[in-house]
Amino acid sequence: MTSTTHRETQIVADPDVPLVRIIREFDAPPEKVYRAHVDPELVARWMGPKDLQVRIESWDCRTGGSWRFVNIAGGEEYAFRGCFHEVRPNELIVQTFTWEGMPDGVALEKLSFEVLGNGRTRLTTTSLVDSFEGRDGFLASGMEVGVNEGYEKLDDLLARS
Amino acid sequence: MTSTTHRETQIVADPDVPLVRIIREFDAPPEKVYRAHVDPELVARWMGPKDLQVRIESWDCRTGGSWRFVNIAGGEEYAFRGCFHEVRPNELIVQTFTWEGMPDGVALEKLSFEVLGNGRTRLTTTSLVDSFEGRDGFLASGMEVGVNEGYEKLDDLLARS
Repeated sequence: MTSTTHRETQIVADPDVPLVRIIREFDAPPEKVYRAHVDPELVARWMGPKDLQVRIESWDCRTGGSWRFVNIAGGEEYAFRGCFHEVRPNELIVQTFTWEGMPDGVALEKLSFEVLGNGRTRLTTTSLVDSFEGRDGFLASGMEVGVNEGYEKLDDLLARS
Repeated sequence: MTSTTHRETQIVADPDVPLVRIIREFDAPPEKVYRAHVDPELVARWMGPKDLQVRIESWDCRTGGSWRFVNIAGGEEYAFRGCFHEVRPNELIVQTFTWEGMPDGVALEKLSFEVLGNGRTRLTTTSLVDSFEGRDGFLASGMEVGVNEGYEKLDDLLARS
């Protein structure tokens, strides 16, 4: 149980390009929100839906590094991986993203950490793929559950730390 | 001087998404064309326009690796860098690409090496960005000179090796 306030997450399909934009505010400064994305011990505590376990296999979050994690649900494992194109402290992470079950599907993701003042942060994540079918399939996959529940766990983590 | 045949390169702007497709055939099997993209000593011998020098600073061409090179023209240096999302031998390279002079512009590139038979290969490179303005700026930048001249040097390299 926690009394942390959970803000609304906006998930928007771009009208012109095959991109999804996810916008969320946090009651913590960019340095703390950024750190929760960079430190694998912190990432493992908030990423993804509530009912899944996360096993981080590698999380070398620096420009030119790479990452891989496994979601575990009911004995099944789902692995995801990518590389970190650029890691600009407290400002920007650009990375690639693939679910290994569909290895030819690759998304280019940009996470921008924006100062809102009063110790708050707006995090905007864009996810770009090479077709509208792929983008719309991603939107229809139930991804909002993992996004919303993950960010609620992140709210709680930020409030405690 | 060389008598190598140089095939035509097709450079096509996708009508639906901000992507450029570059298609080129080579008179060598996929293994050789692939190796010329993976081995930095070979890459340095063909990549880019004829009148530029290339200095490869790093070229760790494996899944999760990264790369950086510098073009030198008339004393000026232009640096490019990215990470290798996936390297699937003789088949596929997925990488990111940024010109450091415009560090927020990132392209997601896929290089597919396709067997044509008779010892030939079709290489298809797609370059995806997040806006049509960015894609059309890339097309208008004179990039076809570097692509065409680079692939002519690659023809020569493949014919000699």
